[in-house]
Amino acid sequence: MPLGWRVMENIMQIIREEMNAIGGQELLLTSLQDSEIWKKSGRWSDEVVDVWFKTRLKSEQEIGLANTHEEALTELMKNHVHSYRDLPVFAYQFQTKFRNELRAKSGILRTREFIMKDLYSFCRTQEEHDEFYEKIKQAYLTIFKRVGLGDVTYLTFASGGSFSKYSHEFQTLCDAGEDIIYIDEKQGIAINEEIIDGEGTYDKSKLKKAKAIEVGNIFTLGTRFSDALGLLYQSKNGEKIPVAMGSYGIGPARTMGTIVEVYADEKGIVWPLAVAPFHVHLIALSEGANKAETLYAQLQNQGIEVLYDDRQEVSAGEKFADADLIGIPWRLVVSDKTLATESCEVKSRRSGKIEILKMNELPTYLRARLDSARQASSP
Amino acid sequence: MPLGWRVMENIMQIIREEMNAIGGQELLLTSLQDSEIWKKSGRWSDEVVDVWFKTRLKSEQEIGLANTHEEALTELMKNHVHSYRDLPVFAYQFQTKFRNELRAKSGILRTREFIMKDLYSFCRTQEEHDEFYEKIKQAYLTIFKRVGLGDVTYLTFASGGSFSKYSHEFQTLCDAGEDIIYIDEKQGIAINEEIIDGEGTYDKSKLKKAKAIEVGNIFTLGTRFSDALGLLYQSKNGEKIPVAMGSYGIGPARTMGTIVEVYADEKGIVWPLAVAPFHVHLIALSEGANKAETLYAQLQNQGIEVLYDDRQEVSAGEKFADADLIGIPWRLVVSDKTLATESCEVKSRRSGKIEILKMNELPTYLRARLDSARQASSP
Repeated sequence: MPLGWRVMENIMQIIREEMNAIGGQELLLTSLQDSEIWKKSGRWSDEVVDVWFKTRLKSEQEIGLANTHEEALTELMKNHVHSYRDLPVFAYQFQTKFRNELRAKSGILRTREFIMKDLYSFCRTQEEHDEFYEKIKQAYLTIFKRVGLGDVTYLTFASGGSFSKYSHEFQTLCDAGEDIIYIDEKQGIAINEEIIDGEGTYDKSKLKKAKAIEVGNIFTLGTRFSDALGLLYQSKNGEKIPVAMGSYGIGPARTMGTIVEVYADEKGIVWPLAVAPFHVHLIALSEGANKAETLYAQLQNQGIEVLYDDRQEVSAGEKFADADLIGIPWRLVVSDKTLATESCEVKSRRSGKIEILKMNELPTYLRARLDSARQASSP
Repeated sequence: MPLGWRVMENIMQIIREEMNAIGGQELLLTSLQDSEIWKKSGRWSDEVVDVWFKTRLKSEQEIGLANTHEEALTELMKNHVHSYRDLPVFAYQFQTKFRNELRAKSGILRTREFIMKDLYSFCRTQEEHDEFYEKIKQAYLTIFKRVGLGDVTYLTFASGGSFSKYSHEFQTLCDAGEDIIYIDEKQGIAINEEIIDGEGTYDKSKLKKAKAIEVGNIFTLGTRFSDALGLLYQSKNGEKIPVAMGSYGIGPARTMGTIVEVYADEKGIVWPLAVAPFHVHLIALSEGANKAETLYAQLQNQGIEVLYDDRQEVSAGEKFADADLIGIPWRLVVSDKTLATESCEVKSRRSGKIEILKMNELPTYLRARLDSARQASSP
C-alpha cells in the first residue's frame, strides 16, 4: 500500500547507495527462466530445489520462475567476460523472486513473492573475491545501521550450504524471528544455532541465546557456477580460468517488517526517520486549517515530506490515534490553542516528547534536525 | 543491462512525476493471482484471455501470473472504499506483467515479461471519471513530450475492446511499428486502422496513413469490474452505487525501445537528454588522463552524470565508435591537443556539432545547458 511502498523505496534507496559505493552496477534480470541453464548447475530438479514455480510457454517448453539468479547472471556474463581486463564485475538488481513455500507466514517476513536485492560478484582470484567480500560485509553493516537496525543486528556465522563451509548472515534480535543465534557480546558477533554444535571454538554457556530474524546473507560461491556454466576468463598468461563468484542478498520487505517488529509499541508503528514514509504528520484542528495549509506548503518547500491529515469529518481523537498507528516521526498539530500564540505543537512519535514551537521558525528548525539526523546515519 | 536500466529509471521517474501530479498514489500488487477473483470477472478461462501463465501452489491450488491488475486492485479496494468520502482514488504501480505471447518479437517492443506502469481510477460518477480521464490524457501527452517523443506521438482513437466503444491509444510514428494509423493532421489526432472503417465520420483519403508503435493506452471501464467483484460505495443518500473505473497503461521498456527506433542513426543510439543514461561521455586520450580525472570530479559536483571511459588499452577510434554506439548526448574529449589550450572538445551526439571550450568554464556551462533543457521539457 502507498505508505508502506514509500518505506520500501527509502530502504531500497539506502541499499542502492551502499551497493553503488562499492562499485555495484544495477541491472534487471527476468523472472522467466530457461530450464537448460538450471539443469547444467543441477538446480532444476524439484528434489534439489523444493520452492520452484514452473509453468509452460505456448510451445509447451517448460520454464521456471526465478527463486534466485546465480545461473541467469553467470550465463549472461559469458557475453561480457572474456579477458582478465573484464573483471572484476559486481552486478545487482532489485527483482521479484518467487518461492513456492509450503507455508507463507509472519506477514511480510516470509512470502511466496518478494523483492530481493541480490548482488553477484565475479572476481579473478579468491584473494580478489575475499577483498570484495570484506567490503560488502561492511556495506551491509552500514545499511542496517542506516535503516535503524544497527544496534540489534549481528554479523552471524552460518552454514555455507552446498557452496562453502560457512556463510555470513545478518541477524536482527527480535522475538518474531524464526532463527536462534548465540551472541558473543565481547566480539560483537553471533553464531547461528544450526552450526554451533559442529564448532569446537565456542562455549555455548558463555554466549547469549536469542531469537533473531535473518535480514541479509552473503555467500562465497567459489567456482560452483562458473564451472557448471563455463564462465571462464583468459589470464595474462593466456590460461582459461573459472571466475570466482559470490552472492549477497537483502530482502527490503523483510527489512521493513523487522523494523516494524523492533520499534513498534502498543499504539502502532514507530518509523526511524531514515525510512519513514513521511517526515511529518500534520494535523489541523478546527480553525487551524488555513494556517496548516500554509505550513504544509512551507515545510514542503524545505524538502520536508509531509502527510497532511485534512479530513474534516473526523474527530481529533481519531486523527491522533491514526497518527500513532502510522508512526511518522514528528506529529504537528495546529489548533485554536496553538494559533493563539502563533505556534504549533510538535510531538515525537518515538519519545512522546512535546514541544511548542513558533510556526514561522518551524520549517527551518525541522530542516536542521533532518539534516543532522541524516548526517548521523550516513556512513 | 546497466546503461539501459538507467534509461528505464529515467523514463519511470518522468511517468511517476506526472502520475503524482494528477493525484496518483504509488503501490505494488502481486504477480501471483488467486483464480477466484478472475473467475468472477470472467477472465480466468484461457479461451477468454489467451496469454495466461498458470502454475500451482504446493497445495495444488491453481494460480496465475497477472497479465493486468483490474481484478486484484478492485478486490483490494473493497477494504478501503465504503462511503462517497473514500472516493475518488487513483492508484498506480510499476509492476512486472507476464503474458504468454505465442511469439515475442521486435526486441524489447513485445516481450513475455515486462514492467508496466498501470494506473486504475475509482470514481463516484461517470462525470468524475470523465474529468480524470481528460487529466490523464493530458498527463500522457506530457510524458511523451518529456521523454522526447512529443512531435511524433498521436492521441489515437481505437477500439474500447469489451469495455466501451472507444479507447485512446498513444501511437508513435515509426517504421518498426505493428500498428497502422490514419492521421488527421489538422486536428493533430489519429484513428487506428482497426476501427476506421466502422467510423463514418472520417474520409480515409484525406488522412495520412502511417506505421506506428502503441506506447500507451487508456480505457474507460465503466462498472464492468466493480459490478463483477462488488465494489460499491454508499452515496450521501445512502444508496449503494458501483464505482466507475478506468485503467491506464504505459510500458517503460517499449517506450525506451521506441525512443531508440525514432532517434537512432547508422552509428548507434541517440538518447534525448531527459532519458539518457548519462549526460556526458568523457574520453581521455594520452596525457589527458589526469586532467580528465579532475574534470570528472568537477562535472559530478555540478550534478552532471558522467560516463568516464578510462580504458587504457583501447584506441581513440574504438572509444569514439563506442561513444557513438551508446549515444550519450555530449561527448567530451581531453587530449594533448585540447590541453595545449586548457580546453576540451565537446561534441553533440545528435547534431554532430563540435565546440572547443575552456576546461574551467565547462562544468558551469553544461550545468546551465542541462537546466535550460530540463525547463523546456518539464510541463
